[in-house]
Parts: sequence; C-alpha cells; structure tokens
Amino acid sequence: MKHSTKVGIIGAGPAGLTLALLLQRKGIDCIILENRSRQYVESRVRAGLLEQNTVDLIRELGASERLDKEGLEHHGVYLSFNGVRHRVPFKELTGGRCITIYGQQEVVKDLIQANLDRGIEIVFEAHAKHIEGIETESPSIFYQHNGEEHELTCDFVAGCDGYHGIGRQHLPKETYNEFRIEYPFSWLGILANVAPSSDELIYAYHERGFALHSLRSETVSRLYIQVENDDTVDNWPDEKIWEELSIRLGAEGWSLQSGPIFEKSITPMRSFMIDNMQYGRLFLAGDAAHIVPPTGGKGLNLAVADIRFLASALTNWYDNQDDSLLQSYSQDCLRRIWRAQDFSNFMTYLFHKQAAHGSFENLLQKSKFDYISLSKAQATTIAENYVGLKEI
Amino acid sequence: MKHSTKVGIIGAGPAGLTLALLLQRKGIDCIILENRSRQYVESRVRAGLLEQNTVDLIRELGASERLDKEGLEHHGVYLSFNGVRHRVPFKELTGGRCITIYGQQEVVKDLIQANLDRGIEIVFEAHAKHIEGIETESPSIFYQHNGEEHELTCDFVAGCDGYHGIGRQHLPKETYNEFRIEYPFSWLGILANVAPSSDELIYAYHERGFALHSLRSETVSRLYIQVENDDTVDNWPDEKIWEELSIRLGAEGWSLQSGPIFEKSITPMRSFMIDNMQYGRLFLAGDAAHIVPPTGGKGLNLAVADIRFLASALTNWYDNQDDSLLQSYSQDCLRRIWRAQDFSNFMTYLFHKQAAHGSFENLLQKSKFDYISLSKAQATTIAENYVGLKEI
Repeated sequence: MKHSTKVGIIGAGPAGLTLALLLQRKGIDCIILENRSRQYVESRVRAGLLEQNTVDLIRELGASERLDKEGLEHHGVYLSFNGVRHRVPFKELTGGRCITIYGQQEVVKDLIQANLDRGIEIVFEAHAKHIEGIETESPSIFYQHNGEEHELTCDFVAGCDGYHGIGRQHLPKETYNEFRIEYPFSWLGILANVAPSSDELIYAYHERGFALHSLRSETVSRLYIQVENDDTVDNWPDEKIWEELSIRLGAEGWSLQSGPIFEKSITPMRSFMIDNMQYGRLFLAGDAAHIVPPTGGKGLNLAVADIRFLASALTNWYDNQDDSLLQSYSQDCLRRIWRAQDFSNFMTYLFHKQAAHGSFENLLQKSKFDYISLSKAQATTIAENYVGLKEI
Repeated sequence: MKHSTKVGIIGAGPAGLTLALLLQRKGIDCIILENRSRQYVESRVRAGLLEQNTVDLIRELGASERLDKEGLEHHGVYLSFNGVRHRVPFKELTGGRCITIYGQQEVVKDLIQANLDRGIEIVFEAHAKHIEGIETESPSIFYQHNGEEHELTCDFVAGCDGYHGIGRQHLPKETYNEFRIEYPFSWLGILANVAPSSDELIYAYHERGFALHSLRSETVSRLYIQVENDDTVDNWPDEKIWEELSIRLGAEGWSLQSGPIFEKSITPMRSFMIDNMQYGRLFLAGDAAHIVPPTGGKGLNLAVADIRFLASALTNWYDNQDDSLLQSYSQDCLRRIWRAQDFSNFMTYLFHKQAAHGSFENLLQKSKFDYISLSKAQATTIAENYVGLKEI
C-alpha cells in the first residue's frame, strides 16, 4: 500500500513525538512509524531527568498537564565522595533554572496522547525496512504493518529510531566519522516501591564504586550501582543491593530506606556519536546519532534539543523555501552534543571507580570533587550543564 | 666547625629565601645553606609567572622594588586550539587579580639581596650531607663548606632544597605516599632576543603539538614547543624552531617575530608529590615535596604558598609555644597542592597532543576548549586557578 505525507518520522520516542507536534503546529503533515506497540513504548523504562529546556518545550507544546502536576522539580543535587557530601544549588547558580524528575515513559505517554489528540497518525508496530531516494525530492520509507508491505513517500525522512534503527544505516558511510568509548563498567539499576531517602539526587563516588540515588515519584525510588561489565543480576539478590547502596551512598546522620524491588537490570556504559547527522532528505535525531553514558541524564534532553533545530529547519523550508537551516542542521546540533558528550564523560570519570582508590589518578579525581565545594565557578559549571545550557 | 641558629634552612631558592625573610621579620634567627654559588642560583633559568599571592608576599617583604618596576602585569591569557584563539580576562573574572611576568632568577636575585641587607646569613656552596636528630628538639644539619666539615644545630630544619635535595631523603619512608605521573612528551624551551609577538601569553594546542608563547621582558621572548621525550636540541636548529612555533601558535592576522636564540633546552614533564611534608623537626617546602608540569606556571607559586604556612606555624610556635599550626602544616599545604596538581594536569591535558588529532578523545579535548569561550563559569575556573586561588 502507498501512503504519502510531508515528513515521514521513524520512531515514536521523545524525539519523533516532539518533532511531530512541532510540525503539526505549523501545519506540516507528518506520519510517525513506530516499530513497537503503544503499550511497549509507554512502559519502556528509560531516563527520568528533564532539563529546563525540555520541560519548557513540552509546556510550549501544551503537553505538560500531567508533568506539571506529577513532575518533581529539583533545585539542587548532592555530590558525594567517599562519604563526604556536597550540594550544588541550581537556582542560585543558573539564574533560577532547575531540573524536573519525571520518567521518560510518562513523557512518552503524554506526547503520544497529545499527538493523537491533534490527529497526528502514529502507526504502531510498523516495521521500517529500508529508505529509498534520500538524494531525490521524494524519498520513501518501506515498512511492514499487519503483515502487509507499505511505502510512505514524503519530502523528508526523520530518523528518530534510536541506536539500532535503520535511520543511521542509510546515512552513507563516507559522510561521517564514528566515535565510541566503551567504559569498563556497567550500571545495575533498580526500581523499588519505597519513598526516596533523599529529596534530591545523590551522585556518589565510593572506593567500592559509583552509586546513584534517584527517584521516579514520591513512592518509587530509582537507584544504581557500578558493577563489572560481565556481572549479571543473578549475582545481586535484593538484600545485597540495598547493603551495597547503603555503604556507597552513606553519609553521617543519613540512612537509606529499602523496599520491594520490582525492576532490576544491568546497562553497559558507552559514549557514541557521529559527526554528521544528515544526507539529502534524511535527517537523524536523538539516539540514532548519539549515545551518552547516563551519568548526568543528558540522553533524552539531547534528543529533544536536536528536534528543536530540526523542526525550525523544516519549518523554515516549508514557510520560506529556505534550506539554510537544513544545511546547517548537523553543525547546529553538534555544538550541544559535544558539550553533552564532554559533560557526561566528565561526570562519569568523576564518580566512577576506575584507578585504584588512593592512587594519583584517584586523588586527582578527589581534588576535582573538592574543587566543586571550594569554587562557585566550578559548581556553576556542574549546575549549568546539568540543567542544560541556554546558549547552545 | 659548629654553628647554631633557630631555623636551619636548606636551599636558597624562592622557598628558602622567603622563609628566611618572614622569620627574620619576627625576630627568629635562621641560616640558609645553599649548595650552589650565588652566581649560579641568580642565573638559573626557571619559571617566570608570579601569581597575585606571590607578588603580594614579595611586596609585603619589601623586596619588590625591581619587580614593581620591571614586572609585567598580565590581565589575561590567550588560549588557542588549532588556530582558533580565545582570551580569558583575569581582572573581570577574578575581581581584579592578575599575574606578573618576572623571571624566577630575578626574584631570586631580589630576595638574596633583601636577605643580605637584613643581615641574614646565606652560606653559598654549603653542601648539606645529612640531617640528624629530627626526632629531638635540636636537630643538626651536617654540611661541607670550603673543604671543611660543619654542623648547624637548630630548633627546626626547613628542607627547601628541591626535588634532588637531602630534605625529602630524611623523611621516613613510612610517613608518606609518593605519587608520580611521567608524561609522554617534553618541552623544548628557548629564550630569544626579540620583542614578544603578543602582549599576553598564548597557550596553544595544535595538531602538531603544544606551543607556548611567553616572555621575560619587553625585549626577551620565552617560547616552548612540545617534543618527544627522546628528542634532543641538536634536532632543532633555530629556523626549524621558529617555523614550528609559527605554525602551532598561528592565528589569522597574527604573525610571530623571530630573533636570535640564546638559550635552548629540553625539559621532561612530570607530576610528583608526597602526601606528608613533615616529620619531627623537619619540614619540607616547594619542589622538595612536589613538582607540577609547567603548564599553568604553578611551581614557584606553590613553593611560596607552602612558606606562608610554614612561617606562620613557626612564628606561632616561637611566639606562643603553640604547635598546632606545625602539626597541621602538611594538611594545610596539601589542599592547595592538590588543586595545583589537578589544574596543572588539566592544562597539560587540554593543550598537549596526546590522542590522534580528530579522535574521540581529541574532540572531547576540543569541546573543553570550546566550553571556555561559551561559559563565563568555565572561563572563571581557568582564571581563578591561574592567578591563584584566594581561598586555600
């Protein structure tokens, strides 16, 4: 079956969903093709930290009703180094900006609903197979749906289909360089039915390894510990996880509340990116073009930042037949992506156990931590990257 | 021959000389034993960058007449990344603080003269051989002078005798940990009779390697390029050095003036420190306890910062029989030393060629550089470390 639209979007994650809403608002037709079911994408556990910029955009799109009600604004973060805890206050250091804790799957639910409310077509379980004609003015996305073959012809293809998607596979290899860091450790993450033991996140270096106290709501805690890359969840019974978290996050006069764990998984840490995100009529955004380690919570926010540029570029093309923003799309995105790559790498280095505890390298790591409490300027660099830079 | 004094100081470098002046001002007798001749130490080429704190102390000691006349105040520094140049303004970012360019040998000349003017005894060519009794209340320094054996008995021994001195050798091995980084590159440094081509220093990363444009006066330039550790000055005829400097420091609309080179040498880069600088009546200061790579110009300034603590601690002991500051001497110094170690390491990493140009690591290095021009907070961290932190 043949279909047509102006912008064919592959992927109903935060990137694809915000792009569709931004385009629809300007009267630009689009269709979203999503590989998975609605139920699957709405329950897929991912990040949960929204930058100020991301919250602002969701508000601007009129999809923030539940976010405004249930999202938890955080005005600071605790950083801990072997039991010494220091708070970085965002509001004071960034002129009133902050982050909001709200699960990515909740964002996805809200954005799907907003898309459907506005009559945007999302085809779930549409398995995009290949893209043709990206060098022409009417590329096509070929996909399977309900056992049938479909072709969606459009003016532009937006590859918002993640690291494993077909978007990047259709970018000619000779148009980009690929960059990778595989870190020598992973995160064991849990979700637990217990009120958070801290009003704000705690990032902790400990001589036993990294730990992070995060949360999803006032009754659900999200916690992580650094484990070896070849570790498995079978090695981590619940009591052992709580014990380890207690030690690593520990500070004088503070204790960690434990509770029933209902999700447990191990995620490898990696940094990945390509230095060109477009070719002809194909444009990539989000995880399709870049992965950051979760330390710093930049993944989802970076995807949304790409989309701001892509939506402006497409709007400028449709409204004014001006392709200058389309031409500069990759370069415009890359400034923020490089900043996020560096910040995520810095935070990862700062809080993970790598060199032996007490080694020169480890004590330089400690001196970076100490500098945050000594210097307002250094604390500001953490705060402004964490809430999301305004300038890029 | 036997001699006695209150504080026996080994080494007439910036550390030993400032210590003697500070003690003399408080009426505490001391003698300086210097291994080399006066002529040698007064012409030994070393650093040339004085932090605000260092200048303030030399002024306080009344030894700044020539420094005030000939020292060149710099209110900013240029940072360059493969031809893109960015200025970090110190005054605006640090509330009026700045650095002063004035050769270390000039500082040493002025401090020697001030010591002699105030009747402080400096024994040149006094070869300190060993120290005895640091666990007692009257340690002795044994030295040779004019072919004769001497013993200087004192209350305290200050080991200001540099990395190769006997001070550290007398600190019991079990009282400290030793930390070292040997960098995989060296600096080829030159002094040339030519007016500086820049009003302020230029630190440059280039895909061919690091370069630094510095100066000693309005007619003498001091320049450096990164070379391999096994390189020799014989590989570097003058024209080749100027050519390389021109390329690495190059920026649009700027050109490097060359002139006769009168000093040429290769220095390896290393970071070194020990985490305890005292035992009984022996106290170390300066290079005897720590070496930083010269990127950032911290070496001399760190030595002077140690001396501020040591002079206060000794004064407090003589005036009030209070040894608390003596007890905390190492810990007090170490906060600043770790900060300087991290800053020097950061600057070294930021501007030297290590990973291949265009690699992920190198592009993260570039993103750190780009962040300095993007963020006032990040520029401030460079500025405040460079002029010297007030807080520690």
